[in-house]
Amino acid sequence: VGPDGAGSDAEEAVGREFRLIAKLRERLARSAPARRSPLAAKVALGSGDDAAITVPDGATATSVDLAVDGVHFRLETAGARSIGRKALAAALSDLAAMGAVAGEAFVQLGLPEGFAEGDCLELADGLAEVAAEHGVEVLGGDISRAPALTLAVSVVGHAESPEALVRRDGARAGDVVCVTGELGGARAGHLLLERPELGSNLAAPVASALRARQLEPEPRLAAGRALAAGGASAMIDISDGLAGDAEHVARASGVRLELEAERIPIMPGVAGLAATADVDPVELAASGGEDYELLASIPPAALEPAVEALAGGRLALTMIGRVVSGEGVAITRADGSELEVAGYDQLR
Amino acid sequence: VGPDGAGSDAEEAVGREFRLIAKLRERLARSAPARRSPLAAKVALGSGDDAAITVPDGATATSVDLAVDGVHFRLETAGARSIGRKALAAALSDLAAMGAVAGEAFVQLGLPEGFAEGDCLELADGLAEVAAEHGVEVLGGDISRAPALTLAVSVVGHAESPEALVRRDGARAGDVVCVTGELGGARAGHLLLERPELGSNLAAPVASALRARQLEPEPRLAAGRALAAGGASAMIDISDGLAGDAEHVARASGVRLELEAERIPIMPGVAGLAATADVDPVELAASGGEDYELLASIPPAALEPAVEALAGGRLALTMIGRVVSGEGVAITRADGSELEVAGYDQLR
Repeated sequence: VGPDGAGSDAEEAVGREFRLIAKLRERLARSAPARRSPLAAKVALGSGDDAAITVPDGATATSVDLAVDGVHFRLETAGARSIGRKALAAALSDLAAMGAVAGEAFVQLGLPEGFAEGDCLELADGLAEVAAEHGVEVLGGDISRAPALTLAVSVVGHAESPEALVRRDGARAGDVVCVTGELGGARAGHLLLERPELGSNLAAPVASALRARQLEPEPRLAAGRALAAGGASAMIDISDGLAGDAEHVARASGVRLELEAERIPIMPGVAGLAATADVDPVELAASGGEDYELLASIPPAALEPAVEALAGGRLALTMIGRVVSGEGVAITRADGSELEVAGYDQLR
Repeated sequence: VGPDGAGSDAEEAVGREFRLIAKLRERLARSAPARRSPLAAKVALGSGDDAAITVPDGATATSVDLAVDGVHFRLETAGARSIGRKALAAALSDLAAMGAVAGEAFVQLGLPEGFAEGDCLELADGLAEVAAEHGVEVLGGDISRAPALTLAVSVVGHAESPEALVRRDGARAGDVVCVTGELGGARAGHLLLERPELGSNLAAPVASALRARQLEPEPRLAAGRALAAGGASAMIDISDGLAGDAEHVARASGVRLELEAERIPIMPGVAGLAATADVDPVELAASGGEDYELLASIPPAALEPAVEALAGGRLALTMIGRVVSGEGVAITRADGSELEVAGYDQLR
């Protein structure tokens, strides 16, 4: 609004914007979780000023994530609530991969023309749900017009000290490589959403679980903390796909990861869908990103206690290979052949 | 890249993405400033892992800002380097308004198809310049395709304690209201960029200064810290326009701000341009956003020392009104008439 534009239309628009921001703030404030971790930062001032004020203790882990309609999700297939859930979950997954306690979040929203206020509030509800589930407080954000729905999420996690957090660069020859949960579900769910006919041979609850895996992934925060406490030497979340993320660990640590294809835990339904789509289910599980499980290296003696620790949270931890001297990643089938997989390119 | 898409094209694209990210990281690492504040967080781990690790001390102020091509800037008129500079400067301005020391930044980039790598690196150079100028370390980011160039910037600032930071809600009846620098330049510069013919009566250096004000604003970090140390009771940066931002302070503090139109410091050239455009220069200065000057309330006895403190940094501090009991904002001309202005609506 400038010298040529001020007037009642503009004032009305300003009023609308402030009302929307107030409503969003109110929805997100509801998330303010009762059960925040004692490690989380003390919040001296939340949303509504130029900046939020916190008093953190120990070390902080900060990660930022960008999600754009048509690139990371499709508004038509996903729905606003799932998009909100997934954007925060994906960001929190990076904190899980550090073994951090989730603390605070900030959200920048780019809204396209015609994106209804109701959808916007649903999206906020999705964010608020995931925040509440993980003891995260949403402390601020920004909002703007944008040509496509855009969510930029920043998350801050906490630990007693920098040494309590697990990086990608600590894998050592002799460690075993393990993965939480099951893989391939997110990619299979994506295929089901785009080509529903691929689900013709799947039981409805199985297909539904695959779609949920794509739309509403679960950040493995408790598992990440347990693995960090249990001596994991390196950790990463599987967002680009097992092969690509294993490659990140291999490169950062200066080691080679030798994985066994038949040990990779594959989510129920993935094999059936892969058969219908005429693709190799292991390739699908090893290349498909967005499962948001954790890949960790850990000294062999620490594996069994870690498996037990995660079982307490009803999450499997599966040994899928070993760290050796060298470089790169190999995923080998029982017949000795090697799986060929490429990572997921976010610039495509 | 999934079961149906893996192959050499995909691998090439992945390679391209990683190379671009490596180049961006290298450019931004150059910014790693020698002269970081002792208050800034110790950086235990920078860009390249799932999260950055810092060890902050005292209180942190965190703010996030979203800038989208066609909404906050126009790539055609601004150029990539200026866009990078402005995105970080605008975010840092929020820390200035808290009286915080600037510490760390995170940047999420959405790149449209066809946005050249050279432009991307120039944008990073602009970010790195502003980071270096203000002792800020860029600790991470994310990158994605997007339909329009999008920059989501998160900044973290620091102070000894929450009480050392200045909020919007502390203005008290009896305080004076003051503003740093000069207003109206950013809006005038915007008009000049969109309608160059409006500059026909301006000297070239004056027109150039107005455009620079729009394209490359300066976050008033030193002034913000001086005002905080000098006893400012409330502070905000002028991003929405003086009238709108004064309204934010009035509402948060539960007071009324009475401003005098003729005291508002107006940037050279604004009056000339306003005359050509046939608009009121004071209205332009009071409604035009993006000057990124600071508006503060301060007890009368603290005004003179604050003026002197800012003069040391060659920045004017001008008293433009008073805080009284009541609500809202009035900007009154010498003849007693009231200026009518509306704020700037980011959702338009």
